[in-house]
Amino acid sequence: MSETFEVGLLGHGTVGSAFAELLDARAPQIETTTGLRPRLSGVLTRSRGNFDEILAASDLIVEVMGGVDPAREYVLRALNAGKHVVTANKQLLALHGEELWAAAREQGVQLRFEAAVGGIVPIIRVLSETLAAAHIDRVTGIVNGTTNFILSEMARTGESFGSALAEAQRLGYAEADPTADVGGADAAAKMAILARLAFDTPVTLDQVVYEGIEQITPDDLEYARELDLSLKLIGTAARIGSGIAVRVHPAFLYSGHPLASVNGPFNAVTIEAPAITEITLSGPGAGGPQTASAVLGDVISAMIPPASTPETSQRLEIVTDLESGFYLHLAVDDEPGVLAQVAAALGSHGVSVKSLQQKGMGDQARLVMVLHRGPERRFFAAIDEIAALPFMRTRPRAIRVIEEEFGV
Amino acid sequence: MSETFEVGLLGHGTVGSAFAELLDARAPQIETTTGLRPRLSGVLTRSRGNFDEILAASDLIVEVMGGVDPAREYVLRALNAGKHVVTANKQLLALHGEELWAAAREQGVQLRFEAAVGGIVPIIRVLSETLAAAHIDRVTGIVNGTTNFILSEMARTGESFGSALAEAQRLGYAEADPTADVGGADAAAKMAILARLAFDTPVTLDQVVYEGIEQITPDDLEYARELDLSLKLIGTAARIGSGIAVRVHPAFLYSGHPLASVNGPFNAVTIEAPAITEITLSGPGAGGPQTASAVLGDVISAMIPPASTPETSQRLEIVTDLESGFYLHLAVDDEPGVLAQVAAALGSHGVSVKSLQQKGMGDQARLVMVLHRGPERRFFAAIDEIAALPFMRTRPRAIRVIEEEFGV
Repeated sequence: MSETFEVGLLGHGTVGSAFAELLDARAPQIETTTGLRPRLSGVLTRSRGNFDEILAASDLIVEVMGGVDPAREYVLRALNAGKHVVTANKQLLALHGEELWAAAREQGVQLRFEAAVGGIVPIIRVLSETLAAAHIDRVTGIVNGTTNFILSEMARTGESFGSALAEAQRLGYAEADPTADVGGADAAAKMAILARLAFDTPVTLDQVVYEGIEQITPDDLEYARELDLSLKLIGTAARIGSGIAVRVHPAFLYSGHPLASVNGPFNAVTIEAPAITEITLSGPGAGGPQTASAVLGDVISAMIPPASTPETSQRLEIVTDLESGFYLHLAVDDEPGVLAQVAAALGSHGVSVKSLQQKGMGDQARLVMVLHRGPERRFFAAIDEIAALPFMRTRPRAIRVIEEEFGV
Repeated sequence: MSETFEVGLLGHGTVGSAFAELLDARAPQIETTTGLRPRLSGVLTRSRGNFDEILAASDLIVEVMGGVDPAREYVLRALNAGKHVVTANKQLLALHGEELWAAAREQGVQLRFEAAVGGIVPIIRVLSETLAAAHIDRVTGIVNGTTNFILSEMARTGESFGSALAEAQRLGYAEADPTADVGGADAAAKMAILARLAFDTPVTLDQVVYEGIEQITPDDLEYARELDLSLKLIGTAARIGSGIAVRVHPAFLYSGHPLASVNGPFNAVTIEAPAITEITLSGPGAGGPQTASAVLGDVISAMIPPASTPETSQRLEIVTDLESGFYLHLAVDDEPGVLAQVAAALGSHGVSVKSLQQKGMGDQARLVMVLHRGPERRFFAAIDEIAALPFMRTRPRAIRVIEEEFGV
């Protein structure tokens, strides 16, 4: 039996309860990876639990209670007691980050906060590790999923801000009091944190200029559609001369912009630096399970410094006979009966046609078709049979078609 | 003066020389971050340097010579001598990864390889750290920039594979011998590495089924355009029942797919898991500076385990008076002279009009315009003046326009 690693949980709302479940579900794999068995040492909510007892029993504290008080005091006390802390609290970090980071450095413990910005999108890790030595010029982000959902809905349906907000609330993408999201304050806190990491300079929430999306009207989105622009709530942190600018405001983006196609309750961040040109990271914004997953990634990183690649614990079979949809291009002689013979060959192997076009005439005649998803082995057997038919002018050409839609 | 951290460099081609330059340029910042001063202890090329001497003088070895022999021997000897290793060698890892990772674990040293897959896109770190505890279902990637450039060119211009390949070679996106790229072997090696990390099971290059893009014709891309599909060389590693499938082949993607809009010599990877839905990471594929930058990020990570956020070393000014382009929406009385007065107000503050539309009539009359980029303070002064004009029916509405195009 491995040693245990005790995790104290502050907060048991959507994120806290999702985290507790996830920790439990993933404990065996975490034990394989880290050699330590993670265990919940205690949970503090408004109505139950004792902070001092939980602190004493924990190796690491997860803070997902939100707000500044008493989260600030708890996090400081945990760090000063020599415990690692993982937090999802953007407001706390945007206001009191330097104080907390200093306490962590002094105590030689980790303060991790991937879940504070961008949900599961690993922007914190990329800025503070992958790009630790890059000279970053600009960070541009869609860092609030609620507003991105509302703007996407307004663009899609032509409805008003109020009506799209109500829809967001109905679907759980907006809170009952949406002020911090739609007014830009939530995005501003996140941009303060990103700017601090990107430019290695202190940035606090009060230094971020921000606007929200409450004033956006269907007119504005109609204009965007006419000119092939996207309207997004954009956070920017950029070098300007020898200083930096950190702002959040609605903006029209030209269609070549990497954030222009980010729709629905998604987050995405683009980082620009000379050595890398640009990187874009995108994924769903913060929901309970996503945020909990980001918190857990931080917990695992704190459990063991990422050393080498661990030994594999699985021996999965490598499968090669799969199902696919196919595009099929046949150059054929232009004569009667061709289509019937091709269809018969496909049918005899159980391959069915989704769409078909006959193109060209004479020695340009072609059959172009899309075939329904099915076992590749049957499809290739049909192709071999078709290739041998007398009217085929060249070898059939097949390309897989990937149909899945991603995102919302 | 800090202690030094000695880096031995194996290989001095495009990546190696870019790395040596970057290490030199970023040494002061790395010293601030890590407390150690990185220094090149020696360089091994085909014609100069002695491996044993370099190894003895180094804390970490960077292997960017490529190929399996003698890279495999050098990396093994470095690990067994207790040195960290950073490598960009996908072929080596796809063939002999388990042997090398085992040696690193035994010696308690790090073997890092972010640069082996996806250029600067931090897919290795995200798979092995952020998502260490996620149950990943599928990894889908465009992991070869050469083929993505060629397919994008064919789609854009209608030209043949041969002609697009020649263009890629002229621009430095394809090598003189492009076989490994266009035939799919390069992407297959990368997918073997990603599958190994994603599914915690051994995967070697010979288990990856792959096809290249040599057979793709302008016809296929014409078909894609007609149906709003994108044709990409796609690598997939997916759970299939209790096994996995790892493949590389051309595929048509529907426009909702997160990889459908990745064009030019770019790389992008989408990871799907229940707890995160999906994450997509995208950025430029491997060029010398990008790969060198990814190698350097690994070197810094090996220098010091990522503990807490370091103290800021900068005190940059926060700038708020910026330049922006604007969209301006004015609800005006429908009467003569309105446009002249608006134009005069803009002109008096040096704000110039890029485009203008008059919309609606009567009490629906509106002026919608886009203004050239300029200092925001001037624009807002003009807006205040316009807001006070007698024919304005509501407060003017302004939204910033972001014009920069990203990518290639």
